Amino acid sequence: MRRGGRTIFEDKVLAIIGVGVIGGSIGLAARGKHLFAEVRGTTRRQQTLDDAVASGAIDKPFLDPLKAAEGADVVVVATSVSTIPDLCLRCAAVAREGALITDVGSVKGKIDAAVRPNMPSGRYYIGSHPMAGSEKTGVVNASAALLAGATCIVTPAADADDLHYRVLADFWQAMGMNVFRMSPEEHDFVVANVSHLPHIVAAALVGAIPDGALPFGASGLRDTTRVAASDALLWRDIFEANQQQILASVARFQEQMEEIKAIMLRGDYQGLEDYLRKAADKRRKRFDGGTA
Amino acid sequence: MRRGGRTIFEDKVLAIIGVGVIGGSIGLAARGKHLFAEVRGTTRRQQTLDDAVASGAIDKPFLDPLKAAEGADVVVVATSVSTIPDLCLRCAAVAREGALITDVGSVKGKIDAAVRPNMPSGRYYIGSHPMAGSEKTGVVNASAALLAGATCIVTPAADADDLHYRVLADFWQAMGMNVFRMSPEEHDFVVANVSHLPHIVAAALVGAIPDGALPFGASGLRDTTRVAASDALLWRDIFEANQQQILASVARFQEQMEEIKAIMLRGDYQGLEDYLRKAADKRRKRFDGGTA
Repeated sequence: MRRGGRTIFEDKVLAIIGVGVIGGSIGLAARGKHLFAEVRGTTRRQQTLDDAVASGAIDKPFLDPLKAAEGADVVVVATSVSTIPDLCLRCAAVAREGALITDVGSVKGKIDAAVRPNMPSGRYYIGSHPMAGSEKTGVVNASAALLAGATCIVTPAADADDLHYRVLADFWQAMGMNVFRMSPEEHDFVVANVSHLPHIVAAALVGAIPDGALPFGASGLRDTTRVAASDALLWRDIFEANQQQILASVARFQEQMEEIKAIMLRGDYQGLEDYLRKAADKRRKRFDGGTA
Repeated sequence: MRRGGRTIFEDKVLAIIGVGVIGGSIGLAARGKHLFAEVRGTTRRQQTLDDAVASGAIDKPFLDPLKAAEGADVVVVATSVSTIPDLCLRCAAVAREGALITDVGSVKGKIDAAVRPNMPSGRYYIGSHPMAGSEKTGVVNASAALLAGATCIVTPAADADDLHYRVLADFWQAMGMNVFRMSPEEHDFVVANVSHLPHIVAAALVGAIPDGALPFGASGLRDTTRVAASDALLWRDIFEANQQQILASVARFQEQMEEIKAIMLRGDYQGLEDYLRKAADKRRKRFDGGTA
């Protein structure tokens, strides 16, 4: 949102807590577009903090999240899911009166429940999920291009102030993201299916392949299992935080596997062809062609 | 194999039965490297035959496979799995005395059993599987680069003449492929796991995703399900021909899914992290890094 050619953030301070691949991409986009007066950032180790400064993702580096958040207008917590609630609350307590706190966690229900009711007065929390992940981690893999054109789901509570929602939506839109509004629960259902389930399936697929066969895996196996290369610790947190929705999506997936197995066992290969064609058609609704 | 700077095929005629994405790539590689005196090719429709000539994949177009194979020295049958055995036998009957017949089918046991015992005398069949598939089909997507550096499994019978095997291995190596020798049964076990199982899993994953969630699928879902965009008819044939090995690999995969589910149900998230890390490490043995 620009007013008189200036952005609503241009005299504001942004604090990015956790300048990894996502936090770093946010910093690069914000600084590249001159959205804020100042972009602060934190990492846990000095080496990655030096990388963050060298990459141009932040103006001011901090090892202490509370120092970075002190007096900030917008705080984005971009750490692993299990550490997000505590950091949101502690940073909110030192941020400027009226500050907007968000996070980029891949699960929203548990975070929202832990953070929102406990916000210090005059600070506002609304969750975000910029769906611009990568199996690569760290600020060295950050890029403003990772966000541009990607989807960001923003999850205000039903009674959230519409102004705060619009400011946050503007923040992501300014980075070129397509913003969708959902409840935290709707979000968790969606990502359980389109993101968390594929991770579990990819890991199980790798687990199922006999060692002797593995060297003969080609592009099909490579792509199908790519997400299994992701950071195990990050994903452990996500799976734990979204357990119920994930177990439900796993059950739906297992039903589909059983259906295919039953079709094959009864030798109904016309039925199998129909199943495969339906899957190809359904996939085409989201991804145009094989490699889109 | 070059003798005195010339290839062993340079005065020979190659017939490619079915100039699609694989047959076309073979033609482009053979013509680009001047391996044969003549490259003939067939498709079922005049339009695709015109495309094959226009793309430079073949010298001489034929609609009739038997006309293309007549007097040929090497015949490569590159049609769908269910049509391969019959075409191998009919083409062998009209090929030159001493001709080598191969195919590019993704399943070898059933084809070998149907073709080899029925070969006309003085013609030799050994199966091949150039693992250079693509979810894209048709000669318009063919390219010599698709074969270069990829794996080709060659499946001679235990009592095959070693000379014939070496000629066939030379044929694929001349196209830049890495040749591995296996029995037809070993091959079918390997591909059930690294190729056919991922297809089934990708199709089931697409099937499991609720329509409302699908629009939010990002790169993870896109890659995990890419192979589900493949031609349903081609894959139906493959699944039918390799049913037993595929059902065994599906069972192994389902065990892995059950293991992950059990870990989650008992809340053992350290165990889940260990599982994910093991999968990432195992995958790295084949694919260096996430996008390799």
